[in-house]
Amino acid sequence: MTSDMIDFSTIFDRRESAVRSYCRGMPAMFQSASGSELKDADGRSWIDFLAGCSSLNYGHNDPDMKAALIDHIAGDGIAHGLDLHTGAKGSFLAAFERHILAPRDMDHRVMFTGPTGANAVEAAMKIARKVTGRTNIIAFTNGFHGVTAGALAATGNSYHRGGAGMMLNGVTRMPYDGYIAGQSDTADYLEAMLDDRSSGLDAPAAIILETVQGEGGLNVARPEWVRRIAKLAKKHGALLIIDDIQAGCGRCGTFFSFEEMGVTPDIVTMAKSLSGFGLPMALVLVRPEYDVFEPAEHNGTFRGNTHAFVTARVAIEKFWADETFQNELTQKSDLIHDALSDLAALIPGAKLKGRGLMQGVDVGSGKLAGDICARAYEKGLVIETSGNEDQVVKVLAPLTTSPETFGQGFDILLEAARETLTETTNIAAE
Amino acid sequence: MTSDMIDFSTIFDRRESAVRSYCRGMPAMFQSASGSELKDADGRSWIDFLAGCSSLNYGHNDPDMKAALIDHIAGDGIAHGLDLHTGAKGSFLAAFERHILAPRDMDHRVMFTGPTGANAVEAAMKIARKVTGRTNIIAFTNGFHGVTAGALAATGNSYHRGGAGMMLNGVTRMPYDGYIAGQSDTADYLEAMLDDRSSGLDAPAAIILETVQGEGGLNVARPEWVRRIAKLAKKHGALLIIDDIQAGCGRCGTFFSFEEMGVTPDIVTMAKSLSGFGLPMALVLVRPEYDVFEPAEHNGTFRGNTHAFVTARVAIEKFWADETFQNELTQKSDLIHDALSDLAALIPGAKLKGRGLMQGVDVGSGKLAGDICARAYEKGLVIETSGNEDQVVKVLAPLTTSPETFGQGFDILLEAARETLTETTNIAAE
Amino acid sequence: MTSDMIDFSTIFDRRESAVRSYCRGMPAMFQSASGSELKDADGRSWIDFLAGCSSLNYGHNDPDMKAALIDHIAGDGIAHGLDLHTGAKGSFLAAFERHILAPRDMDHRVMFTGPTGANAVEAAMKIARKVTGRTNIIAFTNGFHGVTAGALAATGNSYHRGGAGMMLNGVTRMPYDGYIAGQSDTADYLEAMLDDRSSGLDAPAAIILETVQGEGGLNVARPEWVRRIAKLAKKHGALLIIDDIQAGCGRCGTFFSFEEMGVTPDIVTMAKSLSGFGLPMALVLVRPEYDVFEPAEHNGTFRGNTHAFVTARVAIEKFWADETFQNELTQKSDLIHDALSDLAALIPGAKLKGRGLMQGVDVGSGKLAGDICARAYEKGLVIETSGNEDQVVKVLAPLTTSPETFGQGFDILLEAARETLTETTNIAAE
Amino acid sequence: MTSDMIDFSTIFDRRESAVRSYCRGMPAMFQSASGSELKDADGRSWIDFLAGCSSLNYGHNDPDMKAALIDHIAGDGIAHGLDLHTGAKGSFLAAFERHILAPRDMDHRVMFTGPTGANAVEAAMKIARKVTGRTNIIAFTNGFHGVTAGALAATGNSYHRGGAGMMLNGVTRMPYDGYIAGQSDTADYLEAMLDDRSSGLDAPAAIILETVQGEGGLNVARPEWVRRIAKLAKKHGALLIIDDIQAGCGRCGTFFSFEEMGVTPDIVTMAKSLSGFGLPMALVLVRPEYDVFEPAEHNGTFRGNTHAFVTARVAIEKFWADETFQNELTQKSDLIHDALSDLAALIPGAKLKGRGLMQGVDVGSGKLAGDICARAYEKGLVIETSGNEDQVVKVLAPLTTSPETFGQGFDILLEAARETLTETTNIAAE
Repeated sequence: MTSDMIDFSTIFDRRESAVRSYCRGMPAMFQSASGSELKDADGRSWIDFLAGCSSLNYGHNDPDMKAALIDHIAGDGIAHGLDLHTGAKGSFLAAFERHILAPRDMDHRVMFTGPTGANAVEAAMKIARKVTGRTNIIAFTNGFHGVTAGALAATGNSYHRGGAGMMLNGVTRMPYDGYIAGQSDTADYLEAMLDDRSSGLDAPAAIILETVQGEGGLNVARPEWVRRIAKLAKKHGALLIIDDIQAGCGRCGTFFSFEEMGVTPDIVTMAKSLSGFGLPMALVLVRPEYDVFEPAEHNGTFRGNTHAFVTARVAIEKFWADETFQNELTQKSDLIHDALSDLAALIPGAKLKGRGLMQGVDVGSGKLAGDICARAYEKGLVIETSGNEDQVVKVLAPLTTSPETFGQGFDILLEAARETLTETTNIAAE
Repeated sequence: MTSDMIDFSTIFDRRESAVRSYCRGMPAMFQSASGSELKDADGRSWIDFLAGCSSLNYGHNDPDMKAALIDHIAGDGIAHGLDLHTGAKGSFLAAFERHILAPRDMDHRVMFTGPTGANAVEAAMKIARKVTGRTNIIAFTNGFHGVTAGALAATGNSYHRGGAGMMLNGVTRMPYDGYIAGQSDTADYLEAMLDDRSSGLDAPAAIILETVQGEGGLNVARPEWVRRIAKLAKKHGALLIIDDIQAGCGRCGTFFSFEEMGVTPDIVTMAKSLSGFGLPMALVLVRPEYDVFEPAEHNGTFRGNTHAFVTARVAIEKFWADETFQNELTQKSDLIHDALSDLAALIPGAKLKGRGLMQGVDVGSGKLAGDICARAYEKGLVIETSGNEDQVVKVLAPLTTSPETFGQGFDILLEAARETLTETTNIAAE
Repeated sequence: MTSDMIDFSTIFDRRESAVRSYCRGMPAMFQSASGSELKDADGRSWIDFLAGCSSLNYGHNDPDMKAALIDHIAGDGIAHGLDLHTGAKGSFLAAFERHILAPRDMDHRVMFTGPTGANAVEAAMKIARKVTGRTNIIAFTNGFHGVTAGALAATGNSYHRGGAGMMLNGVTRMPYDGYIAGQSDTADYLEAMLDDRSSGLDAPAAIILETVQGEGGLNVARPEWVRRIAKLAKKHGALLIIDDIQAGCGRCGTFFSFEEMGVTPDIVTMAKSLSGFGLPMALVLVRPEYDVFEPAEHNGTFRGNTHAFVTARVAIEKFWADETFQNELTQKSDLIHDALSDLAALIPGAKLKGRGLMQGVDVGSGKLAGDICARAYEKGLVIETSGNEDQVVKVLAPLTTSPETFGQGFDILLEAARETLTETTNIAAE
Repeated sequence: MTSDMIDFSTIFDRRESAVRSYCRGMPAMFQSASGSELKDADGRSWIDFLAGCSSLNYGHNDPDMKAALIDHIAGDGIAHGLDLHTGAKGSFLAAFERHILAPRDMDHRVMFTGPTGANAVEAAMKIARKVTGRTNIIAFTNGFHGVTAGALAATGNSYHRGGAGMMLNGVTRMPYDGYIAGQSDTADYLEAMLDDRSSGLDAPAAIILETVQGEGGLNVARPEWVRRIAKLAKKHGALLIIDDIQAGCGRCGTFFSFEEMGVTPDIVTMAKSLSGFGLPMALVLVRPEYDVFEPAEHNGTFRGNTHAFVTARVAIEKFWADETFQNELTQKSDLIHDALSDLAALIPGAKLKGRGLMQGVDVGSGKLAGDICARAYEKGLVIETSGNEDQVVKVLAPLTTSPETFGQGFDILLEAARETLTETTNIAAE
């Protein structure tokens, strides 16, 4: 190590781009991590309710993945394999077929894209356009699908969209399920516009949606709404793309977020927790009849991140070979729901959001949510906000977090909330 | 390992997308690799003159990087760090500042993007548009910058462009240096159009170029042309972006491909060999005055691939702390030039292309180049083509390849060429 | 005349593009016209309930305009004046100021564009984008604004949109007032998306709307909805553009269609009946603070169609100098409403549409509406359909049509409807 | 007339948009015109070397067209006919077929578009995209094709392009013939890029060009260049569109500007002088096999400007029924060339530009050209500049201008030039 040479107090300020973000509110120098615990260079530790924004669903440095990865590296296993056949890729594919696809009756093909969620979304959008010969893709309010130009067109957030510096084309925006509380089904509106040949809604290549909008504020689509959207897509010759990058890999209580909804998407995008270990990896699942790319028509240097194949294979075999893990998730989901109900009860007007292990509380203002998370960080809990006004305190703990650790985390969170509210009240009273 | 459960002969056909490419011509099941050697599951070995398309400039599984990475993993080092401060990132930044930026008088900021080259290019284009408030970006014939929608607009290849399924906007195409042999400087044309307010060339946000076009066929820009482009960019208020994803990290004989050209780009994009180990990593270097993104305005889950920071730091310290490595590259460049001259001498009309360790031979047809590479593969050499007709046999060996291994590789290549030519002649004679 | 040389039976088939349309259902060779009457070469006559799609609001060949125009031509008055000052233009401007703008407290500037409605819309959209520095323009379902690329992006009709052969950008579509019967105010949805910074609705440069959608099927916006849209535009920094090309010039009972709504648009587009005589003329009214085009920044050869200025001046002075004409329109509106109620009563499920002298009946199917119009044509009435399925029989008679002629026209229309329905019933009964 | 009510000194300032342009340098109140003479309200007269920017090729108020038009109006002829059959349209079509199309072996269909050149260009571009299923259209440096969004994308002028307020898509720019003096044929570059599948030039739907660039500065394409472009278009499956809006209708000495070049365009756009009288009229000529629009797929209220059909028919019959007129044009072209040579001789570095009756002198600076034209105006000659820096003094006199009037006009022009030069020299000498 050369840390003796580095002035750690200034290197980031001196050299890292101003685009950096999480480190501003959580300025510790993180060094190691295990399970649901993060440690900094000084040995201070935090419970992790962020989990790399759902990229560490199985916790940090899972011992089995870690062992397999070290074995692989020590044995000079391929690290970078382009899209060549490697044993590691073959093993991953076989495990993914056996434990994920086959039991769910999915005959989808697996496309390894550049290892970012945005790249998977870009590939999915391209496939849909190629299959249909159409350009328009329907996306929803508050959706988040990445920040490269194609994916960004589908992302709702104006802060990110503004970063493009140009018009973002090819996407039509529709209201997500329940967009205006108390109003009728937003699918009515989509249906009316699709059926009306003078609506100005161009015939869609695809409809892309998240079943739970992670960045958008943990908005949940009802299964009947998703089914209706799926039916509309089919009727109008559009592909249904479910972006399961944040909500998939068990986050909603099942491997795919849509499993219990009675729909089979034409395309699924996955990334984040796919490698199990936090390593960059992404894929697109596509029905065989829509697997239309010619060789390398969509490519990318790192589409064969072999280290990730190794850990991803272990993750699938360890957690998804039987129902044990999934059953635990149901219990944890309830645990989270109860704890967050307690939190919500503290705050007038607060609303529970999300489902599964992707729940949170809309506390009504981004300021309050931010203050609660900042105070939690000081007390040893890493947790973040989401939503269009950052008004939702969002729990994205590793799915492997033990009930005890959940308890400790929630104790911190509630204490942080109480203190924040007291202080706010005191300030208001002065 | 679960390989006993897998029918390796069919898993890829059964489940991997038809988009897979390299594995079609090189169908071995690769298993391990070291230095410039690749091995398959049956123990057969190949010399690697592809190096993950220049992503493995220091060879496979460099022992020092390997040791550091295993140490890191074994010690539960952070694997996935979002954009939090980590020791691994701090160490990388410090090494990069000390050995790369400072000695070259570059005060650029380092932006870690999603870990693919395309993502770095997308970020660079967005920065230029944000800085200038302009949309148009000038790119060149035969340029390759990635296949996500923003980057793809700058990529010349119609095969990749066609994959978009939509109009690609925001980029104007200009002829690269020497585009039409024997004609006057293509920069004349760019200058005339920039100076002419009725040319229809919208004021550019940036000019993006590769100093050597790797995918485009190893076309080399003359230093004086690059300087002239840099001057035109400055005069017309555009940023100069050098895409050093394939040509950088020593590939041209110096760390950056443009070092000896007398230009300092406003923005540099890097990826491929940046991590040193083949792990996904990308960054954008940007002059401080253009480091204009707000926090997380451009983001991405895997922008903190900490494993890559670990190996990248070792790569910088091991190879770029002094001049030793760079000096060796000069000699290897000559060696490659000599060997390829021998190859070119076999083929009427063949032309040497490229520079540094990024050289090749334009053999006049994609068919011939492909046949030579296929035969080389059979004889134990992994090598690929590039160019708009795939007509260039391209040597992208690890920079660390020993002279002996180079010799063996070139022996195979020349033999493959001779046999291919003989067979072709025989067929023609029949 | 050279008609002796022409084979009139085939010249159109032989030489006119297949794009021709109205002449297919109304194949007569029209020769002359006066007031509300059209005559063909054989002396057959029709009552005109189409009025050049509302371009002949004062009837054909109004005697006062005709006299003024002949005087002008006979006296070698300027025919084509670019944007030079001409007496004819000055006189028109003065009359327009005195009788139209000043009494309505509108200090708008008058921009003469190329003499088509589409050109006025293109100019309006460009102004809004220039004023705001934004690109996005909000348009509504079933809106029709022209078929040139900029305007076509705002037009809803997929048949016209498909003619573009390319992606149409820069416009977001929202549901028009009452888009889904029985559902809540569509402005709620627009408001929610404008207020939500993650909705994906980019900040708008303008909101463009027709108060009655002529081509879209005589859909009428309620005044309170228009006021709410106007307020939302103002709140969010967008300009309000009212496209009064078809609904203006008295068609809705007042000179502008929006007069009694309590809104003053930032921009108004006018064309069709503006010249009064059916001559090509278009203009954009723009608030002085938004009159931002530099000299000739938007131009066009025929923006000074001086013949049209002559007749347009007469039209303003003859019909809008006092309230007489407007008062007659109120009575005629009632007359039309009563007659169309009789028509609607014949057809189960039929609905009255529109307002003022822009009313019709939605007969439930394009087939039925087309059959009624075809039969009316055979009986001496020129009338057309509109709507997304062409399901609305639309009355667009000259505003100057006498009650007697209205009576004759409606007699024909009802007879045509009765016969069509009888025949349809008979066919169904067989 | 109501001029007594108008304060003519201020009505334009008070009410006309700031976009007005020609009237700024030529502020007279024009009232009447005949042949090549313009008169203002005070009886002052000017020789017209502008001719409505080539919209008045047969002069103002041609007596035969005038008589026919007055007859038509007096007889209650149709003024506005949508796209119905009218006698006037039939007669025009027959004359156009007989005297223009048939003798030139052109079997093109005639599409009447909205009566502006921009609208014809928009329609032409849409046809090419529909025919080919491609989007990209190749246009040239310094081309001018209109300012509506679709056409503006093909227009080179940055002043006009900037007015769009948005990215203009769907067009690739190439250098016009002789773009850089002394360099090799610009068609080489177009050919290379079309042949190169990695050039980034998307397969074109069409190539659009003017044979003489009127607004662009009277740049002339050589016949052999046009032939080569035509060949490239054919080879690459693109339609050749010749925009003959300014250069057609005899302006270059023959009816079409391309007649003697050995090419037959797939599409021709016409407007400006088509009606012969300065009335708004435009059309698209399209080969029958490309006449692919469905009925009304491209439409427009004023596509049946019947007054224009009347005068256009007379223009065709009077001037193009035999060779007399065309022969005169050859002589006038020489006359203009001689006079402009005299002008050019006065100014060091001046260059003759253009051909036929579309000639001018590049005087080297926009300031000088503007000063000469301003002084000419004061002396009784209306004349304008063109070019990317407005550096070309452009003669666009009516084609019917007599040699005597040409003489008088050129006398004024030369005197204006001499005085301007003297004054400039004096100022410089002070």
